[in-house]
Amino acid sequence: MYRTHTCGELRIEHQGKEITLAGWVQRKRELGGMTFVDLRDRFGITQLVFDENSSAELKENIKKLGREFVIQVTGTVRERSSKNKNIPTGDIEIEVSKLSILSPSAVPPFTIEDESDGGDDIRMKYRYLDLRRNPVRENLVLRSKMAHEIRTYLNERDFIETETPVLMKSTPEGARDFVVPSRLNPGEFYALPQSPQIFKQLLMVAGFDRYYQIVKCFRDEDLRADRQPEFTQIDCEMSFVEQEDVLNMFEGLTKQLFKTTKNVEVGEFLRMPYSEAMSKYGSDKPDIRFEMLINDISEVVKGKDFKVFDDAEFIGAICAKGCSEYTRKQLDALTNWVKRPQIGAQGMVYLKCNTDGSLKSSVDKFYSEEDLKQWADICGAETGDLVLVLSGAKEKTLKALGELRLEMANQLGLRDKNTFKPLWVIDFPLLEWDEETQRFYAMHHPFTAPKPEDIPLLETDPGKVRANAYDLVINGVEIGGGSVRIFNSELQAKMFDLLGFTKESAEAQFGFLMSAFKYGAPPHAGIAFGFDRLVSLFCGLDSIRDTIAFPKNNSGRDVMNDAPSPIADAQLDELNIKLDLKEDK
Amino acid sequence: MYRTHTCGELRIEHQGKEITLAGWVQRKRELGGMTFVDLRDRFGITQLVFDENSSAELKENIKKLGREFVIQVTGTVRERSSKNKNIPTGDIEIEVSKLSILSPSAVPPFTIEDESDGGDDIRMKYRYLDLRRNPVRENLVLRSKMAHEIRTYLNERDFIETETPVLMKSTPEGARDFVVPSRLNPGEFYALPQSPQIFKQLLMVAGFDRYYQIVKCFRDEDLRADRQPEFTQIDCEMSFVEQEDVLNMFEGLTKQLFKTTKNVEVGEFLRMPYSEAMSKYGSDKPDIRFEMLINDISEVVKGKDFKVFDDAEFIGAICAKGCSEYTRKQLDALTNWVKRPQIGAQGMVYLKCNTDGSLKSSVDKFYSEEDLKQWADICGAETGDLVLVLSGAKEKTLKALGELRLEMANQLGLRDKNTFKPLWVIDFPLLEWDEETQRFYAMHHPFTAPKPEDIPLLETDPGKVRANAYDLVINGVEIGGGSVRIFNSELQAKMFDLLGFTKESAEAQFGFLMSAFKYGAPPHAGIAFGFDRLVSLFCGLDSIRDTIAFPKNNSGRDVMNDAPSPIADAQLDELNIKLDLKEDK
Repeated sequence: MYRTHTCGELRIEHQGKEITLAGWVQRKRELGGMTFVDLRDRFGITQLVFDENSSAELKENIKKLGREFVIQVTGTVRERSSKNKNIPTGDIEIEVSKLSILSPSAVPPFTIEDESDGGDDIRMKYRYLDLRRNPVRENLVLRSKMAHEIRTYLNERDFIETETPVLMKSTPEGARDFVVPSRLNPGEFYALPQSPQIFKQLLMVAGFDRYYQIVKCFRDEDLRADRQPEFTQIDCEMSFVEQEDVLNMFEGLTKQLFKTTKNVEVGEFLRMPYSEAMSKYGSDKPDIRFEMLINDISEVVKGKDFKVFDDAEFIGAICAKGCSEYTRKQLDALTNWVKRPQIGAQGMVYLKCNTDGSLKSSVDKFYSEEDLKQWADICGAETGDLVLVLSGAKEKTLKALGELRLEMANQLGLRDKNTFKPLWVIDFPLLEWDEETQRFYAMHHPFTAPKPEDIPLLETDPGKVRANAYDLVINGVEIGGGSVRIFNSELQAKMFDLLGFTKESAEAQFGFLMSAFKYGAPPHAGIAFGFDRLVSLFCGLDSIRDTIAFPKNNSGRDVMNDAPSPIADAQLDELNIKLDLKEDK
Repeated sequence: MYRTHTCGELRIEHQGKEITLAGWVQRKRELGGMTFVDLRDRFGITQLVFDENSSAELKENIKKLGREFVIQVTGTVRERSSKNKNIPTGDIEIEVSKLSILSPSAVPPFTIEDESDGGDDIRMKYRYLDLRRNPVRENLVLRSKMAHEIRTYLNERDFIETETPVLMKSTPEGARDFVVPSRLNPGEFYALPQSPQIFKQLLMVAGFDRYYQIVKCFRDEDLRADRQPEFTQIDCEMSFVEQEDVLNMFEGLTKQLFKTTKNVEVGEFLRMPYSEAMSKYGSDKPDIRFEMLINDISEVVKGKDFKVFDDAEFIGAICAKGCSEYTRKQLDALTNWVKRPQIGAQGMVYLKCNTDGSLKSSVDKFYSEEDLKQWADICGAETGDLVLVLSGAKEKTLKALGELRLEMANQLGLRDKNTFKPLWVIDFPLLEWDEETQRFYAMHHPFTAPKPEDIPLLETDPGKVRANAYDLVINGVEIGGGSVRIFNSELQAKMFDLLGFTKESAEAQFGFLMSAFKYGAPPHAGIAFGFDRLVSLFCGLDSIRDTIAFPKNNSGRDVMNDAPSPIADAQLDELNIKLDLKEDK
């Protein structure tokens, strides 16, 4: 037996006991002829002491020890003279009588401490060393615990976890598929699933009633900051339910998860129609930890000869509490911030409600104090506050104000990572019009059901049709989304038609789902959560990367093992493909 | 709300209650002016009654109902006059007052009953209908329950479920990889994992201590009867453990799984060295539900001028209890059975211990009654038994006898699917010599540790070295296997050398694992279970196919959605590959 206890287990009540521990050398120090070693494993750190009167052999071995050596020691638990209140084993130490070096270690390329001195690149290359650091490992321990709590909740409620194929059919719609050449079927390819959407709907047709799966999905996208080519989804579907049933079920899941893994009570979830989210927060995923709502001041600012506002479709303002003393420099920086291409505002107008009671704006020459008072009133601005105004095309301006709102909240420290405010955004539009291709796209996906009362609008004004679709948003992050599905072949055919599919192309892509619907499809609805994002929210991380044991970088590479990599010609030959590299790439 | 109860929920105590149910029409029949409908969902069947005095509208709707229509009914629970004791809802029926047809159904291509009239092919094509059948769905429900019990057991014991990459590095050793062209890295490919072996060892180097994952793995093999290109593994690894710790941990898991999902107590697991399994059972995965051991009768049969035996390296026999009255026809059939190429025996000799006390063999002219008595004694054959003898090269003959043993047990009904006899096969050889390529192959994999006491043999007689490797075998099926790993770079280098790797080729393939070992690797060991096989054993199935919701056929095709399939030229172009189809294929 390599150990009798872990390094996090021994307490004062074990005093006098002979024990064996194994782990990594965190630190070694000499003091008055004695040697102290902090021995580390996943469960904690225990202090080892090597006395002056250790045997010669033991002393020889101690000399060899360096950081990250793996050792096994046998010794006696004794009370420490100077206790360490910061660690659970801090009352005791081990008087070592026997030491074996199980594995020596080269000097690690960065320090294995909570705060490492290693940069991102080197830590990714030696990911197995980075994972030894407590904060990184703890994220993955929490991830494992969350997955188990989720499964327990769903299993208790009659959900069947069902695995769906990873090697499936490629469908051209949506994001790019990763494909896998089939050796046994020359010239043909599998695709890796972007989501198990069609399979989970088939499981409803199959009468499974309640399905879930924590499942890897794949998208071959150009990777942005917080994307990974493979990601994990909590994928769920229910039969004989309406939207309300789904919201209640997964609100319950989310609450229980907060309770069991973080001991946080999040209360009832607010529900907000998409239209309200857009008009008040300039976003379909509002961060409701703070107010600072968007106010439409178009009516009161127009007609005062300020051309910018007179020409604008929409003028909106937010009120930043207690910011009236922002300096010229700070305001210029904010103006530059909203003018960046990602935000795209033309400029920014401000109104300071000074502490002396005066009002000062950047457009004083167009507006009287009376006028400015009106702005302040609409925005609920009081003495000491700062009103920021953007104008332009309505949708774009709302979004820009939404971004500015988040930025001001960051500056004001209003986005506390330990406060959680979940929210259901509901009543999404069914369709989005794309100017470039002059066609409608499904906002959620082509299987989403319109609200029954909006079905007549499908004929007259499809853009106005609202969907029975919903997103779970927490702290401004979209954690999950889903919809009630169409379960009627005719309505589904109508949708495909609106989305510009011909009968043939719809048949080619979704024929087997449509066939399935002919044999008695139950009403059904579902939801999928981004598990990586959920974990990153629970861990207080800004990125999903450290919620994943072995993530890939922005070029989709695993720099630790250097994947992807070239493969042998014989392999290509067996797969009936050859390389076709472009000269100019 | 679509339903107040499920179709498996109502009992006599609900009498008089108004309820709403939804589900599929299993059956409709008319009787004395009344219509009875069996309404089915995943949870059960409830009988609906439509009275003679139903409204005209209701009657109109009833007429339309066919098998597999999805309907919603509201009505009152009442006691049945003729109760059905075979189903839990058999005491009640629903007097229906309201009926909505939610989805009509075309006539299904086969009957949705426990015993279907549909052949394999049609049921695979309409898999979503086949999954409606109780026995098929119940397998998947059990699978889900098993997965959850496994996770619960492991989570309670500090295992961390950690997801490892699906898009990983291709390694030429072992079975063929499925590969995925990388668009962002032209000319390079990911591989899908055959197992997360290297990642789980890296997690041990990372100090995770206890890892598991229920994970999809992939092998691009020519598919045999019971293989799938994607399959599911319960993958586990532990640090600071010896073989004994692993066996105890996973014996505990297996026992608990039997207990919680099948209410079966399986007792202590027998342990058997590989050499004993081979000599007594002719198999490294013995079915120990029955005895019928192989007996070496070489010594007593040689030297009697029967050339076949005199020339043979090995002569072995099994005793089939109570089979002395096998007819000539039955014995000829058995002889033909062992002569099939899969078994490869040259012929078969029998000895009947007749009920009248006489002994009768097929080689009477070479052997006296005295001689035959010796055979019978060695085999423990008594009056009424049949001894079957095969001869030839030792290893091949043992295997053939092992197969014959299973066949006789099948004929004798000794392989009861509800009896479970788990067994650890231990002390596997470390290496296998391959005559064709004149090199050693790792019997388990290249990371398996030799038994410490056998390490000196690595230099002198590598073929004799036993490994700290183990298989879990239940009822003759290999359910899991694993080993203690090498955690020392030098020993690992020695292994690679024995396996014919050059330093460079070992570096190219496993360099990052070897690098990891330089920074303090703990002793570690692990195991992987074939989850599909485990489920099929628990379900009493002969194949893994029906443990999988959407399996593929023997050509790796999903016949339901016709995957794999050709992809667009533009897709190929983006991936920097082109087709290279062979004329002669």
